[in-house]
Amino acid sequence: MKFAKRTQKTGKSGLEDLFAASGPNVISFAGGYPDRSLFPTQQLNRAFKHSFTSGDTELLQYASTQGYLPLREKIAARLRATGMPTRATDIMMTQGAQQGIDLVARLMLDPGDGLVVEAPTYLGALAAFNAYQPTYYEVPMQDDGIDINALQRVLMSRSVKFIYTVPDFQNPTGIVMSLAKRKAMIRLANQYDVMILEDNPYRDLRYDGKPLPTIKSLDTEGRVIYLGSFSKILSPSLRMGWLVAAPKLLKELIALKGGSDLESSNLTMHGINDYMEENDLDAHIKQIQDRYREKKDAMVAAMTRYMPAEAHFNNPDGGFFLWLTMPAGFDMGAFMKQHLLPENNISYVPSANLYATSAQVNGARLNFTGPTLDQIDTGIKALGDALKLALHQPTLVAEQA
Amino acid sequence: MKFAKRTQKTGKSGLEDLFAASGPNVISFAGGYPDRSLFPTQQLNRAFKHSFTSGDTELLQYASTQGYLPLREKIAARLRATGMPTRATDIMMTQGAQQGIDLVARLMLDPGDGLVVEAPTYLGALAAFNAYQPTYYEVPMQDDGIDINALQRVLMSRSVKFIYTVPDFQNPTGIVMSLAKRKAMIRLANQYDVMILEDNPYRDLRYDGKPLPTIKSLDTEGRVIYLGSFSKILSPSLRMGWLVAAPKLLKELIALKGGSDLESSNLTMHGINDYMEENDLDAHIKQIQDRYREKKDAMVAAMTRYMPAEAHFNNPDGGFFLWLTMPAGFDMGAFMKQHLLPENNISYVPSANLYATSAQVNGARLNFTGPTLDQIDTGIKALGDALKLALHQPTLVAEQA
Repeated sequence: MKFAKRTQKTGKSGLEDLFAASGPNVISFAGGYPDRSLFPTQQLNRAFKHSFTSGDTELLQYASTQGYLPLREKIAARLRATGMPTRATDIMMTQGAQQGIDLVARLMLDPGDGLVVEAPTYLGALAAFNAYQPTYYEVPMQDDGIDINALQRVLMSRSVKFIYTVPDFQNPTGIVMSLAKRKAMIRLANQYDVMILEDNPYRDLRYDGKPLPTIKSLDTEGRVIYLGSFSKILSPSLRMGWLVAAPKLLKELIALKGGSDLESSNLTMHGINDYMEENDLDAHIKQIQDRYREKKDAMVAAMTRYMPAEAHFNNPDGGFFLWLTMPAGFDMGAFMKQHLLPENNISYVPSANLYATSAQVNGARLNFTGPTLDQIDTGIKALGDALKLALHQPTLVAEQA
Repeated sequence: MKFAKRTQKTGKSGLEDLFAASGPNVISFAGGYPDRSLFPTQQLNRAFKHSFTSGDTELLQYASTQGYLPLREKIAARLRATGMPTRATDIMMTQGAQQGIDLVARLMLDPGDGLVVEAPTYLGALAAFNAYQPTYYEVPMQDDGIDINALQRVLMSRSVKFIYTVPDFQNPTGIVMSLAKRKAMIRLANQYDVMILEDNPYRDLRYDGKPLPTIKSLDTEGRVIYLGSFSKILSPSLRMGWLVAAPKLLKELIALKGGSDLESSNLTMHGINDYMEENDLDAHIKQIQDRYREKKDAMVAAMTRYMPAEAHFNNPDGGFFLWLTMPAGFDMGAFMKQHLLPENNISYVPSANLYATSAQVNGARLNFTGPTLDQIDTGIKALGDALKLALHQPTLVAEQA
């Protein structure tokens, strides 16, 4: 029994490591976890109860691959309110935004096809893409988003099917793509006839500054597929995201989802729909923003206080993560494995797995939404102290074989 | 923007047709729908409420790709009770059994790889497989399951990655594979080093006769992957199935599911787990069996009374479907489209889409669980009358272009 060739890359995605690095005694900056105390448990309980007792005899039946229409209408209305002309018919519900990534890769990629990813990028996106055996072209991140000149050079010289980008509070860097770069990216996509996959699960979680238009809202040729999710604004346990695409693309994606899992949970879609009818989702998001802004500020303050001078980090305007860079050659993966986890019970996501091809080792993704304020201060202090020690005794961190 | 090559086959799976053929005024024998009046709505409502109010702060958080352990333990215990030695660690939860089919194809198939399917087979399995561009080898169904001699001839002469089979109350024919053939299939799989994907969502729904061992329970080399589901015994809207596989296979499948949708819904897994703690699932299944036996008997009685002599059909021991065969050349798809649907508002699944390669047109899958007893009698009478008319005026059914 020989497995498919794709398993040479899918066997170790790093996703499981990520979950493993979050045991009970660990201060984890590794996960991309919401603050559990913000889940609207009672409101969701009531909403599900109302769905169950609504007398809708179809609630527990097979329904449709595209998803429950009233929920799609509510999502479309929210997107329109933020400047993105969207109809319910443009939307398909997915198993979290993650399934959207998988389905778009399935739609577009034959083995060897060109795929542009940001460097670094979202670990789970690489796990999804690897199953379709693309040829990756990494384009570096800058402080205002992807390096547009480098992107243009790739598009000029290589055959590319699509560009994968997280323009708002990027995973893992927290960076926001500037408006100029959003416009430039659309222009390049039109010029070189490539698709853009805009993955935007953090968009509503802005703590500072003003929102920029989505790339999809700048798209006049139907070449952007947009992904959104309830995971970060309600609960990841619902496994409910959505995808917005032009009719010709959506038709294919619906067929692919049918083959993949038939449809998303009708019960859960009703539950979320009832939640949105009975509650003010924007007020809930405001609560989340306030809490996460506080945590982010605490993280930045602790970093400023405790990090060695050699460490660089940013102060993101939203999302879940900030990005730490150490001097070139400093291996944040080896440091965590050999010292930080065993000696301090602290974890983050080392950068090596976050690059499609270059495996740069001197960065780390730090999550500030999951840990408590106390854990942030304690954990960042311990991290800073350990980094200082390692910097001044370089032999402490052995190179990984 | 050019789509991946797979979309040449995935664009029209027939799955959407299947849903479309079930409008409000249609007597549908097409769907694979449970009887909605059997859904344990109140009990599930209570179970979800208990999950929400359990004080488990992790309920709405990201959890694990493999799935909620207490639920996997309950499933393992049920499988052991039916003679299948299974540990919770052998199980991964999936988005219905459909996702299991997709993930196994993803694990095994490179484009062009050999795949044995029964002829006819489950429409949704072909939709899943098509995304991986296999080379199909059809093996005919006989009254006691797949034609083992024909299977052996394929395995002797072709390179095959795995065999896809629905051994109990097959979709679409309702046929049960005999014990002798189950043993022969395992023997051949061992001899030719191929994998078996045993898809068994209907196993608990036996109305007559005694259960046979699953193929997985005869497997001594860890080469059978077994799929089960709550869709037919609780509710398809929960989108919850499971997969049993040997550790080496399971490890890869967990990584592939991670890339595909991260994990299944923790909330739904808790809800089902609480349902199983608070209710007697076997008693519920007994109720379902009694109702479906009554419907199946009504369907067989109506077929016996109303079908033309030229029609052949079976009396399955369980499941959702019986299989109707008309004389060679009679096009059940054209007949439905041109006459039965527009003139009688009756639908079924014509056989053409249920063959991977041969597109045989003279069969139909008839579902007896979804329609009411009245609809069964009225619908089958109208179907019989219309078939008699068409048989005696052969020009009525025009060949499809």
